[in-house]
Amino acid sequence: MKNVSVTGVGMTKFGKRRESLKSLAVSACRDALIDAGKPKVDAIYVGNFLGGQLAGQEIIGSILSKELGLGPIPTTKTEGACASGGIAFRQAYLMVDAGIYDTVLVVGVEKMTHAPTNLVTQAINSAMDNDSNEGISGLTFPGFFGVVANRYMYEFGAEKEHLARVALKNREYAMNNPKAQFRKETSLEEIMGARPITAPLGLFDCSPITDGAAAVILTAGDKGVKVLASGQASGPPLMQDIPNLLEIVAIRESARQAYEQASLGPNDMDVVELHDCFAMTEILAIEDLGLFEKGTGWQAIESGLTKHGGSVPVNTSGGLLSRGHPIGATGVSQIVQIVCQLRGSAVNQVDGARIGLAQNLGGTGAYSTVHIFEGSRA
Amino acid sequence: MKNVSVTGVGMTKFGKRRESLKSLAVSACRDALIDAGKPKVDAIYVGNFLGGQLAGQEIIGSILSKELGLGPIPTTKTEGACASGGIAFRQAYLMVDAGIYDTVLVVGVEKMTHAPTNLVTQAINSAMDNDSNEGISGLTFPGFFGVVANRYMYEFGAEKEHLARVALKNREYAMNNPKAQFRKETSLEEIMGARPITAPLGLFDCSPITDGAAAVILTAGDKGVKVLASGQASGPPLMQDIPNLLEIVAIRESARQAYEQASLGPNDMDVVELHDCFAMTEILAIEDLGLFEKGTGWQAIESGLTKHGGSVPVNTSGGLLSRGHPIGATGVSQIVQIVCQLRGSAVNQVDGARIGLAQNLGGTGAYSTVHIFEGSRA
Repeated sequence: MKNVSVTGVGMTKFGKRRESLKSLAVSACRDALIDAGKPKVDAIYVGNFLGGQLAGQEIIGSILSKELGLGPIPTTKTEGACASGGIAFRQAYLMVDAGIYDTVLVVGVEKMTHAPTNLVTQAINSAMDNDSNEGISGLTFPGFFGVVANRYMYEFGAEKEHLARVALKNREYAMNNPKAQFRKETSLEEIMGARPITAPLGLFDCSPITDGAAAVILTAGDKGVKVLASGQASGPPLMQDIPNLLEIVAIRESARQAYEQASLGPNDMDVVELHDCFAMTEILAIEDLGLFEKGTGWQAIESGLTKHGGSVPVNTSGGLLSRGHPIGATGVSQIVQIVCQLRGSAVNQVDGARIGLAQNLGGTGAYSTVHIFEGSRA
Repeated sequence: MKNVSVTGVGMTKFGKRRESLKSLAVSACRDALIDAGKPKVDAIYVGNFLGGQLAGQEIIGSILSKELGLGPIPTTKTEGACASGGIAFRQAYLMVDAGIYDTVLVVGVEKMTHAPTNLVTQAINSAMDNDSNEGISGLTFPGFFGVVANRYMYEFGAEKEHLARVALKNREYAMNNPKAQFRKETSLEEIMGARPITAPLGLFDCSPITDGAAAVILTAGDKGVKVLASGQASGPPLMQDIPNLLEIVAIRESARQAYEQASLGPNDMDVVELHDCFAMTEILAIEDLGLFEKGTGWQAIESGLTKHGGSVPVNTSGGLLSRGHPIGATGVSQIVQIVCQLRGSAVNQVDGARIGLAQNLGGTGAYSTVHIFEGSRA
């Protein structure tokens, strides 16, 4: 096993962008290539989910190799719904780790805001198993996580306010992040009083529709932020096949793999970016990553344990809820934030952060990736 | 470098199918798993292009791991337009070759015939760079290859009849293939007289809209048909960036890599499946793979050199033109045919075939993969 490091990062501002999918991707890639010192690139992996459905654009890898002047190198897009970016990063990491390529460009990108909301909802629903009774029942992602939130509250005694506290924390972090979609100061009262989407989830408990791109350069060697581990797992794509709605087994299994590879445990993490597609999902994820016991995540939120000064700051970028969720870009943008934290140059920098974790979810738990990183500042 | 072998193959009938995308994929996977002796599978790679746009279905990898009872293994879809299947196979091969996984399931799948033709045409056009003047000009794939055919005929003296002879050969091969979409006996006169699509290309010179799936199992070791080489390259995704319309540089580069890895040349190939999305493309591909000199492919066709008894039988499955072209499945189905040839059990078996090559193209030359295989019957 080789040393594999992230030597460059780049990211567009997330939000409603006028640029095309291609322009956004090119911009993030150029920034990452410059940040890495313009290395020779051997391959490109693109994380993207809805390029075909919403932007009428596939073959993004080939377009980028041409546009960036990288020559006739092999490229591919990877898709695993909202985990497309994490999966693209994992493919690239495994290739460099195996010595197949020396330097790989990973980019995640999505263009969504130009499309009508009903089309976006329909397109996102292709991340369910639609050859099933669920597919035709009208279940949506907010619907699924709304049900989960109700059950969680019933089982463990959490309240709507705990969801709101997740949204508030991530909004407060986003206020300092110039790349974030939502930077307006927002009060707990506003969040609590916002219009319901699927009760108990209100507007601020749901990640938005976003455009954006994020890119990283992976290189063999230990110059940069080192990748310590890569885990990936699948889970049931149908709600009816999930034995316990309050556990996301793909997160647990991908985390187990990653901790084992890194010979580290959840308590060793100094900073975490995880997949808060809904406020509820952040609470489940901090539990399924082992940062807190099952059923106690809401108490950790209440006690501020996932903020600066707590046991582990979570989603210091603002998370999907406030940084935004350009689907294919999300997994890569999480890694950009962790790399910046471990370089000591992040927004909402965690003092002395040395070990960081990024977790990316696809579907209602159909995919999860977990990557663990180590900064060179010992 | 390890030995990596194909130990199982499976394939649905290609054509207009009533089954869902998921059913088709499951069926091909089950056949391949049984053919391989039901091994423990470590990962799944799915080649698919239009699942989101035409079938409203992504997350195919996760759905398959659940449906086939393979557990929480990592899966991903890869996309590179019509080369999606070849790219999925290459990812799996590289992973097994590197020792990351022992056994990988590769499946290519597409469901297209249920959609209106104008929607299919629009969806396929996402394999062009649509953030360009070409994207809005109305250029289509038949349009592109029609222009190429006109230029080829002008430069090298070929005639419409040579295109028709490609279509006729592939139709004759498909007549013996129970999995092929078109098996009706067709005369040269019918092909020549068919309605024009984009002159000089007529109906039989263009690959059809098809449903279907194909799967293979890749395993470490030399029990099975050995993978000798994997090449992949990118080419310009825009027509205006192609310096010479009569050369597909991605084919040449991917073939160069593969021949070098295998320490073999074009003359060593006993049987070839290549990407005849149009009759013209087959002529370019036999030249760019080095099987015949540039500008002489049409003469090779005329002399029957790409048929049984010639120098190298090409597209003995019937090719995209008559076996059909379920886009994501195509690259994998080519490999299924080559594996069957090297096992000695193919339709249109080539006597004593020991070395075979499969070439898969994406876009107007945006991607190409080339894989070379060796049978165990020395």
